[in-house]
Amino acid sequence: MTDRACYFISGSPPCWSVMLALAVKGLSYDARRLSNSAGEQKSAEFLAINPRGNVPVLVDGDVTVRETNAILAYLDAAYPEPPLFGTDKVQTAEIWQTVCEAGDRLRAPIGNLVRPIFRKRSAEKADEIMTAIEPVYQELSALEANLANRHFVCGSDISAADLIVFPAVMQLLRGANYDGADGLDLQVLPLDEHYPNLADWARRIEAIPGYEAAYPPHWR
Amino acid sequence: MTDRACYFISGSPPCWSVMLALAVKGLSYDARRLSNSAGEQKSAEFLAINPRGNVPVLVDGDVTVRETNAILAYLDAAYPEPPLFGTDKVQTAEIWQTVCEAGDRLRAPIGNLVRPIFRKRSAEKADEIMTAIEPVYQELSALEANLANRHFVCGSDISAADLIVFPAVMQLLRGANYDGADGLDLQVLPLDEHYPNLADWARRIEAIPGYEAAYPPHWR
Repeated sequence: MTDRACYFISGSPPCWSVMLALAVKGLSYDARRLSNSAGEQKSAEFLAINPRGNVPVLVDGDVTVRETNAILAYLDAAYPEPPLFGTDKVQTAEIWQTVCEAGDRLRAPIGNLVRPIFRKRSAEKADEIMTAIEPVYQELSALEANLANRHFVCGSDISAADLIVFPAVMQLLRGANYDGADGLDLQVLPLDEHYPNLADWARRIEAIPGYEAAYPPHWR
Repeated sequence: MTDRACYFISGSPPCWSVMLALAVKGLSYDARRLSNSAGEQKSAEFLAINPRGNVPVLVDGDVTVRETNAILAYLDAAYPEPPLFGTDKVQTAEIWQTVCEAGDRLRAPIGNLVRPIFRKRSAEKADEIMTAIEPVYQELSALEANLANRHFVCGSDISAADLIVFPAVMQLLRGANYDGADGLDLQVLPLDEHYPNLADWARRIEAIPGYEAAYPPHWR
């Protein structure tokens, strides 16, 4: 039994980022899954924990934190090793910059473009999806080039940047491989062919102890 | 002469946040104003500094940082006193949570709702504006209640949370007081009547040494 819990929705990239951060820190936690379709984020029970009614939420003993980036910053303050935001000011700057930009330029557009696929509406939304993915390709290409010389997105060690980027990329791959995506070629699969450095990097993330426990349960 | 520069657009709340952070840290800087209407963010000269073509950007000696929250995190790592993100894990959590939420729930909706006012289209957009401001009122009321017992948004000391919230609130007040807002009562002015604790708090921010240098030049 642990005094630490992460409230999450299966497959939500921000929730996955937090659970991966807990894994990187080597922290045990209760993974408390909420059902999005059942509206459990807005249940009285959950609103008592987070009046905003959103996830992820980390409860760590007496401390309750919401907002993905805030949870990562909290974890780094509470459990400094290994650091998620670098060990000097230059690393801190690059990691935070990447975290902020990856949220806006990868996670958000990918979330928007896979939604119609998961809802089996990819045929009617194909043009919109292929337009929306264009700037995402630019980000993926920049990551691919960057990872030619680095093990992780911001250097030789895993950081918060990887933890934000990875779930977004995985969500895109899931969209590309989804039943509803029939006839829509998102140009990312197989990842080893389109973005081989990203594929190697993804395998490094997947090797983190605790990775399996963080994996979205309904994706298995 | 200083080796530190902040590239900004006058009246941009995120830029103002960064310049206030520099003021709080007591750091001198060259304020390099870009003209939004002239498209200077996309000039070759500026793209050489920031390929994303957005502001704010901080250049601090050899380090160039973009993204508001990343710049604040960098400044705190590089110049720890006074701290912008608290001195213990509980403060760090609350401040980062507030920074993240204020960006999404105050700055973004306020930016959207004042835009038609600044473009003198408030009459035709009045219904949309008054709908968009409703959730902002909830945030302002929560801040008002919070500031009954605290000098600053996250406690007795100024923090990054104040630096994000303040420019957004000021932009809302400017919108409410704008020529183009004729006939539209945004229910925030005078601030001393609608939100007296916020008015007192704003005066505390305005008393920061360096406040005047950070004030949007075209608002004077």
